[in-house]
Amino acid sequence: MADDYQIQTNGSDGGLANGDDGRPHRPLLELYVKASGIDNRRIGACLFCQEFWMELYALYEVGVVRVEVKTVNVNSEAFKRNFLGAQPPIMVEEEKGVQYTDNREIEGRIFHLAKELRVPLFEKDLAVEKNIQSIYRNFKVFLRAKIDHDKGKKVVTPLNELPPQIAATHHKLVEQLANIDQLLSQRGTRYLLGSSMTEYDCELMPRLHHMRIVGQRLLGFDIPHNFTYLWNYILTAYRTAAFIESCPADQDILHHYKEQMNIFTNQRETLQAPTKTHTIPEAVLEDIRRLKLDQ
Amino acid sequence: MADDYQIQTNGSDGGLANGDDGRPHRPLLELYVKASGIDNRRIGACLFCQEFWMELYALYEVGVVRVEVKTVNVNSEAFKRNFLGAQPPIMVEEEKGVQYTDNREIEGRIFHLAKELRVPLFEKDLAVEKNIQSIYRNFKVFLRAKIDHDKGKKVVTPLNELPPQIAATHHKLVEQLANIDQLLSQRGTRYLLGSSMTEYDCELMPRLHHMRIVGQRLLGFDIPHNFTYLWNYILTAYRTAAFIESCPADQDILHHYKEQMNIFTNQRETLQAPTKTHTIPEAVLEDIRRLKLDQ
Repeated sequence: MADDYQIQTNGSDGGLANGDDGRPHRPLLELYVKASGIDNRRIGACLFCQEFWMELYALYEVGVVRVEVKTVNVNSEAFKRNFLGAQPPIMVEEEKGVQYTDNREIEGRIFHLAKELRVPLFEKDLAVEKNIQSIYRNFKVFLRAKIDHDKGKKVVTPLNELPPQIAATHHKLVEQLANIDQLLSQRGTRYLLGSSMTEYDCELMPRLHHMRIVGQRLLGFDIPHNFTYLWNYILTAYRTAAFIESCPADQDILHHYKEQMNIFTNQRETLQAPTKTHTIPEAVLEDIRRLKLDQ
Repeated sequence: MADDYQIQTNGSDGGLANGDDGRPHRPLLELYVKASGIDNRRIGACLFCQEFWMELYALYEVGVVRVEVKTVNVNSEAFKRNFLGAQPPIMVEEEKGVQYTDNREIEGRIFHLAKELRVPLFEKDLAVEKNIQSIYRNFKVFLRAKIDHDKGKKVVTPLNELPPQIAATHHKLVEQLANIDQLLSQRGTRYLLGSSMTEYDCELMPRLHHMRIVGQRLLGFDIPHNFTYLWNYILTAYRTAAFIESCPADQDILHHYKEQMNIFTNQRETLQAPTKTHTIPEAVLEDIRRLKLDQ
């Protein structure tokens, strides 16, 4: 099955996956994801790209599709010429001669494939939807407010010393994280809907990871350690192949946010060897073990 | 009602629309659309931006929402900081404190509003969906193939002198345009589904207009003049406020494609005063009148 799943970067040019193995026809889906601004052979921190990558990975894992992921430098002339101004994620299904350049279309096609191939990736759950839908938006509100407040300061302001208006954005985020922690505790499941991953996990897991990496390094913020069920869920992400494979390095995540926020404190990330934080704090891990959540 | 609909460009800073007029509460929706690469006070040729703009305009026209459209220079630091790497179209609903940065989310919100406010913008029609879904993709395939073929030539190759492979991409496009012409003739309606605009029109009208402008100026291609029903539909677009308001100038459309295709034949568009082709060929107009389609 080695040929059925490939990652190609701007720097390599591996051959095409070969479906001629006598098994039922499995469509080949190519996903173009945004490259990192540090090194265009590395995956960039594009949340929609990771979300669709995880969904495709889920279909690949059960053996119903073949997948090729390609990182692309969106500023290259070749990319612009090929996709005429469309931005990643872009999905291509060569045998149908179709490019999907709109998130609605990409999701529509994956939805259709999952349905046809009977993979329960798109089960509906309104309670889950309600709980996760605005969490990343509210993280961004907090992020902008705190970065603005800290501008020009040598050290980041501790969270308990923030002026009320900015503290409020922090509280709102924590409240929403608490809701998800509670939901997970009530459900008692490995993923949001049950024992296997659905689109909701593909949406939430990458966002939680960004909050964690960016929170820690730029905001002096961490997901509260008493949210044991939420941390256990993050640990699940770190043990889920679809997440690990599609996850950018810490440095590439940080670089993305620094670039957008126009922060040039130093150029550390661009020089560091890429690393991925896929562990959780020791004390939290002990709580998880004590509650036997990791079994 | 003058305040209920505003367009703000990078160059101006009009005040906020004021909803305090005693009428039922109408939500204020701000749509950020991509500015032209020629002049960032002008609308750029972003198809998704125009599609959502037309949908919002439809809701504004029946008096249920207020709309503000803002053109944004995606390369500006202010834009990047505010939206952290998201690309237009972006919709903001300030009173809910929500930014919609994903086409799926924007459409979801407009869908919900239309439903709540009983505006039939999202009626389903599978025959229409099937007919329009791949037409723009196939136009892009033809565009790239012909531009490559014409590279380095002083004049564009006439369509009847193309090598078979490129001619095939042209034929496929014409075949699809013929299908839509036939569908419109069978339906006998002003818009695709009936006498009022739906999301399908918001999708198809801007794409047909791009094909027309780009076809004429870069490819020596025009929508065949015997497709009278299709031309009549284009004329309908040119008489629909939602389309006219949201339509970029010819120069801005051409500039977008030239930039993506890396064509630097000359810099004509950037110097010209912006104009909009919203007329159709005289002979076609006569056919339309003869068939009394314009009544």
